[in-house]
Amino acid sequence: MSVDRLNSTFAALADPTRRAILARLASGAASVTELAEPFEMSLPAVSKHLKVLERAGLIARGREAQWRPCRLQAGPLGVADEWLEQYRRFWEESFDRLDVYLRELQRKEEEARRSGLEGKEEKGGPDE
Amino acid sequence: MSVDRLNSTFAALADPTRRAILARLASGAASVTELAEPFEMSLPAVSKHLKVLERAGLIARGREAQWRPCRLQAGPLGVADEWLEQYRRFWEESFDRLDVYLRELQRKEEEARRSGLEGKEEKGGPDE
Repeated sequence: MSVDRLNSTFAALADPTRRAILARLASGAASVTELAEPFEMSLPAVSKHLKVLERAGLIARGREAQWRPCRLQAGPLGVADEWLEQYRRFWEESFDRLDVYLRELQRKEEEARRSGLEGKEEKGGPDE
Repeated sequence: MSVDRLNSTFAALADPTRRAILARLASGAASVTELAEPFEMSLPAVSKHLKVLERAGLIARGREAQWRPCRLQAGPLGVADEWLEQYRRFWEESFDRLDVYLRELQRKEEEARRSGLEGKEEKGGPDE
């Protein structure tokens, strides 16, 4: 069941509109019409996204007949985060390696710039 | 580009075989044959999953002609984790609410059990 939940959570998050809907709901409940506003999208298209989010347990719909507000349900995001956490040391290592690489690049550029300046100074200063 | 990267990362993670492949690679590089072993899956089926992971930047393939080992590249997992982190307070709240609910349930059960015992005691002790 936890495997299915991870599948549906990650699949739901793989779409930028659905991530934007979750971001909107983080600031409070909203109706489908309100959720559709910022997107150039038909109401049925938005409803389809909401159904995916609802099936993944990421939103809940109110029971009020006319205004069925959507609310964020963040539990599955916590489960997804827990799964990702196992890999934290790997991405921290890779960010560290990137950091080392960028510093090395910066150091070499700095060296190249200095040796360029020194060359110019030997010739008698900047010749611009 | 970051939006595309999140799309492809989450889409890649939405499959249990691909998550299992990443888990295997967390303990070291492996060939396609080695990766295919634990799954009842053809090599082409596994290769398809590897392509999805490679396109998402989650694995890299070695250049060695015969043995092209796959290696975990965890950077995109860090980016996905960063995205999820924005919602941490929401899922922590929802876990807290679940916790409160479960405690309340436990308290009520305990109360029911006690009042049942008291009822029995009033009648002159347990009558089982």
